Amino acid sequence: MTPRSAPDRLLAVLAAFDHGHPALSLTDISRRAGLTLTTAHRLVGALTDWGALERDEDGVYHVGLRLWELAALAPRALALRQIALPYLEDLYEATHENVQLAVRDGCEVVYIEWISGRSAVGVHIRVGARWPLHATGVGLALLAHGEPALQDAYCERPLASFTPHTITDPARLRRVLAEVRRTGVAVSTRQITDDALSVAAPVHGPGGAVPAAVSVVVPERDAQVPALIPAVRLAARGISRALGWQPAREA
Amino acid sequence: MTPRSAPDRLLAVLAAFDHGHPALSLTDISRRAGLTLTTAHRLVGALTDWGALERDEDGVYHVGLRLWELAALAPRALALRQIALPYLEDLYEATHENVQLAVRDGCEVVYIEWISGRSAVGVHIRVGARWPLHATGVGLALLAHGEPALQDAYCERPLASFTPHTITDPARLRRVLAEVRRTGVAVSTRQITDDALSVAAPVHGPGGAVPAAVSVVVPERDAQVPALIPAVRLAARGISRALGWQPAREA
Repeated sequence: MTPRSAPDRLLAVLAAFDHGHPALSLTDISRRAGLTLTTAHRLVGALTDWGALERDEDGVYHVGLRLWELAALAPRALALRQIALPYLEDLYEATHENVQLAVRDGCEVVYIEWISGRSAVGVHIRVGARWPLHATGVGLALLAHGEPALQDAYCERPLASFTPHTITDPARLRRVLAEVRRTGVAVSTRQITDDALSVAAPVHGPGGAVPAAVSVVVPERDAQVPALIPAVRLAARGISRALGWQPAREA
Repeated sequence: MTPRSAPDRLLAVLAAFDHGHPALSLTDISRRAGLTLTTAHRLVGALTDWGALERDEDGVYHVGLRLWELAALAPRALALRQIALPYLEDLYEATHENVQLAVRDGCEVVYIEWISGRSAVGVHIRVGARWPLHATGVGLALLAHGEPALQDAYCERPLASFTPHTITDPARLRRVLAEVRRTGVAVSTRQITDDALSVAAPVHGPGGAVPAAVSVVVPERDAQVPALIPAVRLAARGISRALGWQPAREA
């Protein structure tokens, strides 16, 4: 699977880095990118000169500050996050639990913000992390408000399982999605880990789109779901309004 | 200034995007990158397929979600920010003012976190933004704790001026840096805009390094600097301890 074109080879060097591999030697990079050591050396040099990669004193490469600056321009990540952050902070102040903002990319959610108190439950979620839509509160909120074609296609895929509680039955997933649309909130219970629960609500943009979802993740055993729902919904509505959404009519 | 090598051409396409130009047409990109339209089209296509760029319904290109995910791996940005965020939130809760975390890149600071209340003073600082070291509180804190060679080289450069209050005299800058080292805090008054003031403190890493600085930016006219100093210093020390720093001895 040697990448052929020059752009593909350079992007393969960047793609060698992921959450499991945030620090790589030149040899690691050449192997993971499927490039000769000579080619990898040349491309890594160009990326390091530019600032996309940084080399530490041990000769190990990391993602560089310049990519962070560039990523700060992504409208679906930092720009959205910048608008949302005050509301996420309010939600954090109100609950003192883990607070997340996520967007959909294909069949997965990507967490673009994650506020965690030092005392909040440890969860296996990080900024930049991905999970399948059906297994998380934010994913259910985004899928429930996605195009019908997306929902159909998603329900035909195998549904990955992480705990005995993960939704793996397409018919059950469809019922859950209908419930999310009806109530305006998604509750995902023990789907990713056996001890956590998330409450999520969709963020509406102008013109009916749902560009993001907000959630709170709490320990399942003492979760006060009814108390969390209004806080999460309020935060989501605050962000929606800041994005230019106007509610059609209130019940 | 046509970039020659294949990697340089691809990176020139990415470099066409900056804070002043977060959304570009293909024509804009080709002009800003110094590439023919044909070459730009090919490279933009490769970057879009990979997810580094995204094309909206108007045919305009933006930085894509995939770069955000990659940037989340940068140890000097998101990884540091993840450790620092609880302390920055505490500082925000304590002051309800703009809170920043910044690192040094060459002769500039880069803001890697920025928490801003909806009611806090509007400042011209964004995540990913850069300013010269001498003109900001965080920059003074980082420069004061940098290598002597860096300080010497910096003081020999022309010092850019943004307001009549910006430090432009190298001798004055040296006095300010000595004061920052003595007091452990940097106060930058009306240096970037005429109406704002920042109070900053260095973040210490293990082994004597100062990898970052924390600051609060407030309106200059009613700034309570003596009240802000302990809060900023405490936040910086909290982050320093979380990074593994241990104070040598207390006075």
